[in-house]
Amino acid sequence: MAASSSVTAAQALVGRAISGHPSPSPSHPDRLAFGLSSLAGRALKSPAAPRLQNRRPRAASRPRRSSVTRAAAVETLEGKAATEALLEKSINTIRFLAVDAVEKANSGHPGLPMGCAPIGHILYDEVMRYNPKNPYWFNRDRFVLSAGHGCMLQYALLHLAGYDSVKEEDLKAFRQWGSKTPGHPENFETPGIEVTTGPLGQGIANAVGLALAERHLASRFNKPDMEIVDHYTYAILGDGCQMEGISNESCSLAGHWGLGKLIAFYDDNHISIDGDTEIAFTEDVNARFEALGWHTIWVKNGNTGYDEIRAAIKEAKAVKDKPTLIKVTTTIGFGSPNKANSYSVHGSALGAKEVEATRQNLGWPYEPFFVPEDVKSHWSRHAREGAALEAEWNAKFVEYEKKYKEDAAELKQIITGDLPAGWEKALPTYTPESPADATRNLSQQCLNALAKVLPGFLGGSADLASSNMTLLKMFGDFQKDTPEERNVRFGVREHGMGAICNGIALHSPGLIPYCATFFVFTDYMRPAIRISALSEAGVIYVMTHDSIGLGEDGPTHQPIEHLISFRAMPNILMLRPADGNETAGAYKVAILNSKRPSILALSRQKLPQLAGTSAEGVEKGGYIISDNSSGNKPDLIVMSTGSELEIAAKAADELRKEGKTVRVVSLVCWELFDEQSNEYKESILPASVTARVSIEAGATLGWEKFLGTKGKAIGIDRFGASAPAGRIYKEFGLTAEKVIEAAKSL
Amino acid sequence: MAASSSVTAAQALVGRAISGHPSPSPSHPDRLAFGLSSLAGRALKSPAAPRLQNRRPRAASRPRRSSVTRAAAVETLEGKAATEALLEKSINTIRFLAVDAVEKANSGHPGLPMGCAPIGHILYDEVMRYNPKNPYWFNRDRFVLSAGHGCMLQYALLHLAGYDSVKEEDLKAFRQWGSKTPGHPENFETPGIEVTTGPLGQGIANAVGLALAERHLASRFNKPDMEIVDHYTYAILGDGCQMEGISNESCSLAGHWGLGKLIAFYDDNHISIDGDTEIAFTEDVNARFEALGWHTIWVKNGNTGYDEIRAAIKEAKAVKDKPTLIKVTTTIGFGSPNKANSYSVHGSALGAKEVEATRQNLGWPYEPFFVPEDVKSHWSRHAREGAALEAEWNAKFVEYEKKYKEDAAELKQIITGDLPAGWEKALPTYTPESPADATRNLSQQCLNALAKVLPGFLGGSADLASSNMTLLKMFGDFQKDTPEERNVRFGVREHGMGAICNGIALHSPGLIPYCATFFVFTDYMRPAIRISALSEAGVIYVMTHDSIGLGEDGPTHQPIEHLISFRAMPNILMLRPADGNETAGAYKVAILNSKRPSILALSRQKLPQLAGTSAEGVEKGGYIISDNSSGNKPDLIVMSTGSELEIAAKAADELRKEGKTVRVVSLVCWELFDEQSNEYKESILPASVTARVSIEAGATLGWEKFLGTKGKAIGIDRFGASAPAGRIYKEFGLTAEKVIEAAKSL
Repeated sequence: MAASSSVTAAQALVGRAISGHPSPSPSHPDRLAFGLSSLAGRALKSPAAPRLQNRRPRAASRPRRSSVTRAAAVETLEGKAATEALLEKSINTIRFLAVDAVEKANSGHPGLPMGCAPIGHILYDEVMRYNPKNPYWFNRDRFVLSAGHGCMLQYALLHLAGYDSVKEEDLKAFRQWGSKTPGHPENFETPGIEVTTGPLGQGIANAVGLALAERHLASRFNKPDMEIVDHYTYAILGDGCQMEGISNESCSLAGHWGLGKLIAFYDDNHISIDGDTEIAFTEDVNARFEALGWHTIWVKNGNTGYDEIRAAIKEAKAVKDKPTLIKVTTTIGFGSPNKANSYSVHGSALGAKEVEATRQNLGWPYEPFFVPEDVKSHWSRHAREGAALEAEWNAKFVEYEKKYKEDAAELKQIITGDLPAGWEKALPTYTPESPADATRNLSQQCLNALAKVLPGFLGGSADLASSNMTLLKMFGDFQKDTPEERNVRFGVREHGMGAICNGIALHSPGLIPYCATFFVFTDYMRPAIRISALSEAGVIYVMTHDSIGLGEDGPTHQPIEHLISFRAMPNILMLRPADGNETAGAYKVAILNSKRPSILALSRQKLPQLAGTSAEGVEKGGYIISDNSSGNKPDLIVMSTGSELEIAAKAADELRKEGKTVRVVSLVCWELFDEQSNEYKESILPASVTARVSIEAGATLGWEKFLGTKGKAIGIDRFGASAPAGRIYKEFGLTAEKVIEAAKSL
Repeated sequence: MAASSSVTAAQALVGRAISGHPSPSPSHPDRLAFGLSSLAGRALKSPAAPRLQNRRPRAASRPRRSSVTRAAAVETLEGKAATEALLEKSINTIRFLAVDAVEKANSGHPGLPMGCAPIGHILYDEVMRYNPKNPYWFNRDRFVLSAGHGCMLQYALLHLAGYDSVKEEDLKAFRQWGSKTPGHPENFETPGIEVTTGPLGQGIANAVGLALAERHLASRFNKPDMEIVDHYTYAILGDGCQMEGISNESCSLAGHWGLGKLIAFYDDNHISIDGDTEIAFTEDVNARFEALGWHTIWVKNGNTGYDEIRAAIKEAKAVKDKPTLIKVTTTIGFGSPNKANSYSVHGSALGAKEVEATRQNLGWPYEPFFVPEDVKSHWSRHAREGAALEAEWNAKFVEYEKKYKEDAAELKQIITGDLPAGWEKALPTYTPESPADATRNLSQQCLNALAKVLPGFLGGSADLASSNMTLLKMFGDFQKDTPEERNVRFGVREHGMGAICNGIALHSPGLIPYCATFFVFTDYMRPAIRISALSEAGVIYVMTHDSIGLGEDGPTHQPIEHLISFRAMPNILMLRPADGNETAGAYKVAILNSKRPSILALSRQKLPQLAGTSAEGVEKGGYIISDNSSGNKPDLIVMSTGSELEIAAKAADELRKEGKTVRVVSLVCWELFDEQSNEYKESILPASVTARVSIEAGATLGWEKFLGTKGKAIGIDRFGASAPAGRIYKEFGLTAEKVIEAAKSL
């Protein structure tokens, strides 16, 4: 869906943001353009630097209290905070919207929303800065519900705050087919949801990524006289998130980086699905976070200690060099007389009788889904105030642009996701005469070329920068004191790395994070990679040492089943380039697929630059690199990917010498090949040619798809071994001789 | 390889332990019999309770100091410790064996062995109790090198200690094809290595599992007058292990469980691959461990502070209710004048020049791989003393058996892995009239049936016991104060759970751990599952909520690509039973495959008991559940697994009503089906029948293997959705109507 000038920008942006999984073509770069809501549709269409146009008149929507400033939000907004009675009523509204929606669906998790309603109310009503009518306003505060099962909390808050994505009918359709209110928060379904959570621990790591993005952009673009990037990142995490290793990984990094504008609430309710946390979780969480370099606070009464919560937020904001964990002791299912403080309220509807008892207990006389008028009226100001906040920021941006033209242009590309015209020309090209090289090295050439032309390109490795070859030579390290730099040092934390990159990617359409480790260790970060795919976060996964070709490190380090395991994952591109041109093509594809992550499997070992490979071929997913037949009817088709394409080409040469007509096909990306027309596919793999051989240093399962019933697969269906690479290739039969032997047997 | 009475038990046991990946048949249960080294080969062959026979005479091999007692090992053994000069020499021997092996291989990691040689020496020479001539002696201390890349440390120690698995020629074959000294420690290659490490963080989690096993068995079998189970578990972990989330998960559990006999050394060398740990790892590790409930110690001079190391171990042993972390500050590559304390010594050979400089620096005049005579002589006592330790324990076991006959019989089954005769009869059977039920519930019936007959059966869930249905009703919770119980509460720590189970499985052949979560969250524990497969740890993975059939939780919780991802993984069985009989069959297979882990994918939703299913069928991997054709030539074959087998059967019934001959095949375990004879496979899927349809609620990729070029796959090649299960099945076209439609189109 293309934005057009006949709809308002905000409408267009919402429409684009929640579209399905697009397959952008090179001529239509698909990095989403949003965030600068005042951009006209026309500007959105331009791949070149967009200009600010058609701004809403600044004065028209300015709120009465336009002087509200950010750093003192709690204090300043307190004047506007609801009276105690209205506050209670608002908090109970949140509780009962959750109770009612779960009851109607007869499915869901009422416990967390009932316990965390006070935190939710204070954040969305008193603290956070956002514009409900443009959920993609760039400078908004970000909120992440890491304990994603409690999503009814967030849906209730979005509803009260005036987001169009969650109307009353959406609450009533909770967890139903096609609704905007799925069983866990999904950014691609519901504007206002920043990231996709549910799998525990992912959200807090995403929040670290969002806070990293803010810190990085703020340090690059803010000026002494103008803070153009300036927002907080809030998260709520539960006991489950705390137990998951990923949260420790990412919070260790957040502490190391000193992300002062990250404020996480730990919903300390002592209950997980198996019962009291005493049975499996008795560590001292705050002490652990202090060890990780966080500031910590404990709010002992999270149920009714509203001022304690407010004071904690104020304290957290005052600590600028450390992230803050606010442990808030709450009662899960607060208000339910018979189920509160028990696992039974965690993940099931209360049941009609207990709902009634809870209504009695909390003095709630209303029918299901009812929002009392005074609560509605109290919350109604957020649409107005949010628009004003955005307008104010837009006006500031105009000033910024006048004073800092080049920075503004860069920042705008990051905000909109527009790619600079001709960016792809920066990618290197190769000829068969270019020196042989490992694709991991060729990858580094591409990374460095892209970093020069893409202002939002940044990333790093999980402590393997010198093996993955991922350093950007023109930049220093992103560190506490140098957050403007772009080489991110993740340490040996693959899982946290992936989820942090999801947060970065979903912060702004023009932020393009890449991250790296050995291909086999995608296993360590698989849940994050899956969420990249599901949540349309265009992270680029740079995965080197992609086969037994890594040699001596042995089977623990040698991927076997990994290629097929990602080929089967929806909405992700598994690319395995064979040489320089294919590596460049893989990067071109990765950049263009802004809403579909890419995995590049790259070799440790040197590979020749092959004749016939091309970036254009990679964009088709599969193509012919050489053929001596005519009429689309070779005697034999040899298919391969990556480091084995060289072997396929050699075998073909030998067979041709013996008079055979042989076609060599690079199947560098199965997903892209699948998307080609039937005519194209037939032109590459004609049905009439059943003599087919595949060779790939990985599991053979899946190759049947291209081999048919007569073809033969050469691959590895056992674990690898520790030995020099050449020896393993030979022992495992990954040789031109074996290809020839297989071909002759057909 | 079967043990026979013509070889010594120890030889036989070593031989069996390092065999390849066996495919045991039901008539030859393959739980390895070892640990009781005095068992005769004949006893090993019996599936019934073995008896102690042919013991070596106790007095014959008793060492001079047989009164050495365990708890005070450091002190008592100090008398025997090398003189200071000899100690230095021994430590340098370890260093240079590592340097020389890496140099010869021109590949490997010299830095850690050079820095940790003092810890290694003190552990293997002064502290640990083991018998180098029987690496499988049951009551040995366990050692885990979690920082597995430093494996030359352990190979050097095994060599000095007299293990037959690491002779000089093995050191010289470091990292070469077919050697016993692969690039990372592999238990299935090298007797003396307890678990397979290399992927960081796995080892420390394995160590938690080993310590859990000891604590559990000790509390079950020790008597006031007789400690028959009594050993320590030691581990060395590096900065990388500490950064990985899995280590925090498993160490949080170790603290919770109070595993006092777990002693971990943290090699604090400040260097990881990317350079100084300052760039990504600045947390206070000891403070974190204190928060996790550990006792912590800091040895500031790990390079030459031998007495500090000794004192730390003594202190750690004195703390009986907490595991201990000993942070030892070392210099990576200690002794190398130009490379020590830099990343360059972490993972590359020093190079001839620097090797020479290091020899000069440490005063090492010897040729490569040389072990000075006095060092050799000093270490030579371990074979003798180890044999004595084992003999002493064997004698104690004889006493134990006299006094505690039943306990001894149970413990023996745990030590040997022998399954009690007729165990499989405990598994339930079903008829089509049995009530419909979810396979997760049927699984619980099997788990509880097995727990009654298998003394080493224990396990639990990652905080989903009531969803995964994994509680053993006859037992309580394994907790700090009730370690004799068998329900393990892992909390929300899937990755730690898997690796802890690997440790349990590899502690004793008769320990059979199971663990559980939602099938989609195998992603969180995939590295541990892969190491189960690689290291032949027969863990049983109970994975419920195995498809979109889980309904409202939505796509973050719905597996799509997971079945194929495990079908492609070597040495693991991916089982997806359809009903009660298939679930029981899956458990039978899982128990029998002691050296091959099994994953059971189980439904959340109710399924009917189908006509034609059987446990015997499951053992073949694929079989016919119904057919109305004759002559092995049906018009159509419908293939399916798990919850969709019911749909396949329904569609077949409809098609038969229309006069077609239809065969319905359950392909419950592809790996087992692949292992059947060609004749059997042809009898199920005759090549001549090309009209084939498959239906499975997961990715279609891979089904081409059975469908051929003409068949049609019904499955899901996108992410799932949040809605009631029935609705999703219909919307996604997983219905009998769609099967019929596909069949008719063929």
